[in-house]
Amino acid sequence: MKKHGGRRQEKTPRPSRAEAGAPRSRPAPQARGFRRPAPELAALYGFHAVREALRNPRRECLDLFATPAAAEKLSPDISARGVALHPVDSEALAARLGPDAVHQGVFLEARPLPALDVSEIERKSGLVLALDQITDPHNVGAILRTAAAFAVDALIVTERHAPEFSGVLAKTASGGLEHVPLVEVVNLARALDWLGDAGYQRVGLDSEGPASLEQTVLSAPVALVLGAEGKGLRRLTREKCDTLARLDMPGAIKSLNVSNACAVALALTRARLMQ
Amino acid sequence: MKKHGGRRQEKTPRPSRAEAGAPRSRPAPQARGFRRPAPELAALYGFHAVREALRNPRRECLDLFATPAAAEKLSPDISARGVALHPVDSEALAARLGPDAVHQGVFLEARPLPALDVSEIERKSGLVLALDQITDPHNVGAILRTAAAFAVDALIVTERHAPEFSGVLAKTASGGLEHVPLVEVVNLARALDWLGDAGYQRVGLDSEGPASLEQTVLSAPVALVLGAEGKGLRRLTREKCDTLARLDMPGAIKSLNVSNACAVALALTRARLMQ
Repeated sequence: MKKHGGRRQEKTPRPSRAEAGAPRSRPAPQARGFRRPAPELAALYGFHAVREALRNPRRECLDLFATPAAAEKLSPDISARGVALHPVDSEALAARLGPDAVHQGVFLEARPLPALDVSEIERKSGLVLALDQITDPHNVGAILRTAAAFAVDALIVTERHAPEFSGVLAKTASGGLEHVPLVEVVNLARALDWLGDAGYQRVGLDSEGPASLEQTVLSAPVALVLGAEGKGLRRLTREKCDTLARLDMPGAIKSLNVSNACAVALALTRARLMQ
Repeated sequence: MKKHGGRRQEKTPRPSRAEAGAPRSRPAPQARGFRRPAPELAALYGFHAVREALRNPRRECLDLFATPAAAEKLSPDISARGVALHPVDSEALAARLGPDAVHQGVFLEARPLPALDVSEIERKSGLVLALDQITDPHNVGAILRTAAAFAVDALIVTERHAPEFSGVLAKTASGGLEHVPLVEVVNLARALDWLGDAGYQRVGLDSEGPASLEQTVLSAPVALVLGAEGKGLRRLTREKCDTLARLDMPGAIKSLNVSNACAVALALTRARLMQ
């Protein structure tokens, strides 16, 4: 196990999304007392993202900043967790997190979750997701939320060309980040080799695939591999898949948003595996 | 037929999303020459949104503002359509549309699409969507894109508590807005009555439904009814449905984002109807 994102962040230190959104001059008076964001911190905001983090024993929680109303709603989880609570007002949170952060009155400073090695994936649902360089944090957050709902066993991403697993991604994931084990790999092709050796059927979603996902014979465990919108799967990723499958759409628009494509693929795969 | 959104906009005139994002003092020098946004104009930006609008004979296109690179990529559609092209640079578009608009070098001023009456829905796929007060333009845009991919016959929304069908919604829909006939109703319950009389099975997605969507007997034509996240379907909307169905999720997070819930519901419904 290693702290998720640590290696990438050491190589290319950059401000967190939350920091980037904060005013760059002096902090607003209310914002004093906030810890200065450092790469080894995860900024979590939004009601569901924070509540699920407080409930996650694997998540190391540091400081919680909350409005009185949000603290009230979260009080059982705050008590159970024993995290330090700092009362703030909504304006202080906006000043700290930037105007676009939908913080819902609550901000948790925490440690990033430990990322697993591909060999540490526990087989429960028999379904894992691998993302080939999907960089948009809204899309990856939406995928994480849906992956958590479908009880996906792991989300595999590349160390490079993946978004930070905090901030707007965690907000969009709506707590899903706490429930889907993350596997961060240097080389996706090698991870797919490993999954193949471990018995996984590696199914790449590809608009040029020879058959539709409905027509593809599936047997658990399955690793669904998704590429970024427009770019799709890289050549080597495609070559490491056992089968490539299309999502056939009957309408005028042929391509789905990547998180909706993922939702459709998970629904169809689960329905097929349960038949 | 009526111009979509006209009635709502007469009652409560408000700046368009594009206008709201633009600087409120004097316009930047590059922004001169842009038409002043009026309620009867739709601001469309983003490559796919604009390309599909140019290709849509039902869409009245007024003025196209494009960077040289975007104009080059769209040149067959611009020629075929014969729309007035105004060369601009990317900064002028950002000044006009606001910094958050992902304009991709192109902005089309057009008329809103005519909205249909519920009695004018053409039955092709036998699948329509009804949204009960879903107001977030990103969500409705994502739903429109997916609805276009699934060849949904119509998207029914309420006149009030629906977003503007332009700007960020059109961008998110990625061209889907041009392909899914819009039906705007004052009263969703009455529209559901009409659909029932016309033979549609009205299926409301509801976490409290008595059976899962997989267990529900479906027969075309089907009207899928979705409520906003958190609020769900209103009582009267629920009462007008023939059946309420849950999306059963096996994972720790039980609720999907509304556009992903819609994608899963459309995929499962289509698979069931095709069996």
